[in-house]
Amino acid sequence: MEKKATTRKEDYSKWYNDLVHNADLAEHSDVKGCMIIKPYGYAIWENIRDILDRMFKETGHSNAYFPLFIPKSYLSKEASHVEGFAKECAVVTHYRLRATADGKGVEVDPDAKLQEELIIRPTSETIIWNSYRNWIQSYRDLPILINQWANVVRWEMRTRLFLRTAEFLWQEGHTAHATQEEAVEETEQMLRVYADFAENYMAMPVILGRKTPSERFAGAEDTLCIEAMMQDGKALQAGTSHFLGQNFAKAFEVKFADKHGKQDFVWATSWGVSTRLMGALVMTHSDDEGLVLPPKLAPIQVVAVPIYKTSEELEQIEAKLVALGQSLKSKGIRFKYDGDDNKRPGWKFNEYEVKGVPIRIAMGPRDLANGQLEIARRDTKEKFTLSFESAETHIPQLLAEIQQHLFERSKQFREQHTFEVNSYAEFKARIDEGGFFLAHWDGTAATEELVKTETKATIRCIPFTENPEPGQCMVTGLPSAQRVIFAKAY
Amino acid sequence: MEKKATTRKEDYSKWYNDLVHNADLAEHSDVKGCMIIKPYGYAIWENIRDILDRMFKETGHSNAYFPLFIPKSYLSKEASHVEGFAKECAVVTHYRLRATADGKGVEVDPDAKLQEELIIRPTSETIIWNSYRNWIQSYRDLPILINQWANVVRWEMRTRLFLRTAEFLWQEGHTAHATQEEAVEETEQMLRVYADFAENYMAMPVILGRKTPSERFAGAEDTLCIEAMMQDGKALQAGTSHFLGQNFAKAFEVKFADKHGKQDFVWATSWGVSTRLMGALVMTHSDDEGLVLPPKLAPIQVVAVPIYKTSEELEQIEAKLVALGQSLKSKGIRFKYDGDDNKRPGWKFNEYEVKGVPIRIAMGPRDLANGQLEIARRDTKEKFTLSFESAETHIPQLLAEIQQHLFERSKQFREQHTFEVNSYAEFKARIDEGGFFLAHWDGTAATEELVKTETKATIRCIPFTENPEPGQCMVTGLPSAQRVIFAKAY
Repeated sequence: MEKKATTRKEDYSKWYNDLVHNADLAEHSDVKGCMIIKPYGYAIWENIRDILDRMFKETGHSNAYFPLFIPKSYLSKEASHVEGFAKECAVVTHYRLRATADGKGVEVDPDAKLQEELIIRPTSETIIWNSYRNWIQSYRDLPILINQWANVVRWEMRTRLFLRTAEFLWQEGHTAHATQEEAVEETEQMLRVYADFAENYMAMPVILGRKTPSERFAGAEDTLCIEAMMQDGKALQAGTSHFLGQNFAKAFEVKFADKHGKQDFVWATSWGVSTRLMGALVMTHSDDEGLVLPPKLAPIQVVAVPIYKTSEELEQIEAKLVALGQSLKSKGIRFKYDGDDNKRPGWKFNEYEVKGVPIRIAMGPRDLANGQLEIARRDTKEKFTLSFESAETHIPQLLAEIQQHLFERSKQFREQHTFEVNSYAEFKARIDEGGFFLAHWDGTAATEELVKTETKATIRCIPFTENPEPGQCMVTGLPSAQRVIFAKAY
Repeated sequence: MEKKATTRKEDYSKWYNDLVHNADLAEHSDVKGCMIIKPYGYAIWENIRDILDRMFKETGHSNAYFPLFIPKSYLSKEASHVEGFAKECAVVTHYRLRATADGKGVEVDPDAKLQEELIIRPTSETIIWNSYRNWIQSYRDLPILINQWANVVRWEMRTRLFLRTAEFLWQEGHTAHATQEEAVEETEQMLRVYADFAENYMAMPVILGRKTPSERFAGAEDTLCIEAMMQDGKALQAGTSHFLGQNFAKAFEVKFADKHGKQDFVWATSWGVSTRLMGALVMTHSDDEGLVLPPKLAPIQVVAVPIYKTSEELEQIEAKLVALGQSLKSKGIRFKYDGDDNKRPGWKFNEYEVKGVPIRIAMGPRDLANGQLEIARRDTKEKFTLSFESAETHIPQLLAEIQQHLFERSKQFREQHTFEVNSYAEFKARIDEGGFFLAHWDGTAATEELVKTETKATIRCIPFTENPEPGQCMVTGLPSAQRVIFAKAY
């Protein structure tokens, strides 16, 4: 582990890379663009996955699994979809290798060329809707509410761990409905599920809204999203939920008979979040000392470290800490006792700080004598002593408090970095500070594009609001129905 | 659903295909060799995965994720490994498509050719050991106990759902150790975990043993396996655990310093089970009416169907069944109440029979009046009535009984189809009956090959036994240390 990590102020991007490395979350593989998710990082992802999976099931969805390979021709069936995805995909052209003439290596066997090339799925709408055609005849077969946990590949030259990699892990929901209303309601429901997860598990406040037409998913009629603010003031799109209309049903000829026998195309949605959430999690809460994890996602919520000189001391302290651990585990708390004799307490303190463990307990001979423990909170770095008796009830409360505090702190940060601007001059002057800029926009792609070209800021979303306040576009002065969020983004 | 499915006697292979289709477990995709695992099939796989995952974690393993892509050159690094896997792999040669000249489709962009082709992982030893090189310096970094849940691809022309598909889902454990003893112990431990899972969750008896050298995993020094008998008397290899020696450490130059600073190559194991277990599960227990599931893996353990004419009857029956369901769910039982008014009870009975639900409850107006329920066991097809009051305690017991009965029944079947044979003439006369044939073998690859060529039977394993009984090879008369198991296999 590097003793002196880069700080956020020095170099935010390097801080992130160092942190992902030092906290043992992931690393680049020798295969260009692909990452290796290491056990500690994967344990966080497992928590994310398990919670989301439960939420999907509670809203009526089942998991299934569709092929990794998509025939090249499928991609062309939905016109705007192919535009969006064909440019960046891994293409399988052969199905066999053979020994080289010198016998020392292997080479592609030219006789094993596929008749039609296969694409590694960048997303699965096409292969799934090709199957739904056979599954759907009548309204009785609807809705279909399926989710898939899978790896997908979108070729990327410039990659960043978790944030942008050629292969990544994700879930993709693909639902089929008899009516437009039902599909729209599903699209909205899944956005709410994502927002619930982001705020109540990741402790990451998000803005719910709608993408502009130019930022929509390729093939969608409407793309809803949750947007989060990172500590450098940049936006990160944390999840999207798409209303696909009848586009994929038409492309794959998926019709159903309604109650009166009338044929119509099926209505569709798709929605997904990915290992990108890991990047969002890191950048929302972590500090210059390392990772800070919300308790609900932390693989280890409480770690206990004994401090001792003699083996007799160790024995007594260990007995106390292990007993406390048993009691905490019985309450469902993920507790680790680290009695490794080969490592000094200071080394361990640093290790668990870098790894973002929410609560660290230390106990030395004096604590033992006084019947107390030392508690260190990772989020605020506060330390205090606690009587041994009260620890059992206090620690679960403290975990809840940390979870809440992280959310409040992030929310406050976002509020402090969200600005209303009314002139394009002011916007251009301030956009490099970072943050969310609430500004009026005339609703045209031309204006959106102009702002993007001139400032690199994009419209992150048209936020849902109950009280849209009309105004005039900051660029053109034309009428605007409500303020939208401009920001630079990951 | 097809009303009249093929029976096992008529055509065992067609019976299997029909069953997988009728029980809604999986289907072939339009992508040659790839399957779609449907929600009901995937729910069973989720149960398999979750139980195994818990067992792996209880034995100290963590999950991680390595890239889907393996550079072609990695495969050549371990000489026997490339022999085994290079012939059947999907090769990625390009990373972009472009629009065709007529604008109507897409084609591979010749400018986007990869410098080195990438192979879709058929198994991950090479990519993982290439990473372990950077992770391991000293004995303090060992052992590494990692498992990965992933999709892998081995090109197959002739595929069968779950049993042999080009893409399949599996787990692959990859561990690194400081000593040979520890790696051997790990290999054996994981075989015991697999056997425990097969017998106590799948209710599928297995023989634990060792593969002959010619049946070893490509790159292994020793391959241990569990072998199960299907209802047609064929063997199915249900899991393998490999002691890899220092082969991959040498191929990828993975050395460590021991306590005294001496450098040595690291010792390795790998072990895996796949969606093939789904095929084994189907073929171990199911009957001519459809799937039969052991309760511990059944997505629905108990289904309740109301029988009624009036809505008043329905209301009363529903109240009773839902209350029972609540009580069963609180005991962790997966209960479903099927009150779908659009389907007749007979249709539902058939549906849940085909899908292998272990216990079906029916309740009609007369049952209501008598305070009783009708219970139908899927495994024995017995029906009996139960007082409403006793159901709550009796049903959990009955689930345990069904689980046990399925294991006993399969074990009895295996015993009835396991034969000792002492002459090759007898062997050849009887091998087509199906079953496991315990025979003496002289330990040579030549004899093994001869038997395989002449009879299509292979040595499934050299079973572990505490009392090896020496004898003479049934083919050559040469000395044999113990009987081995010959069988035809999936």
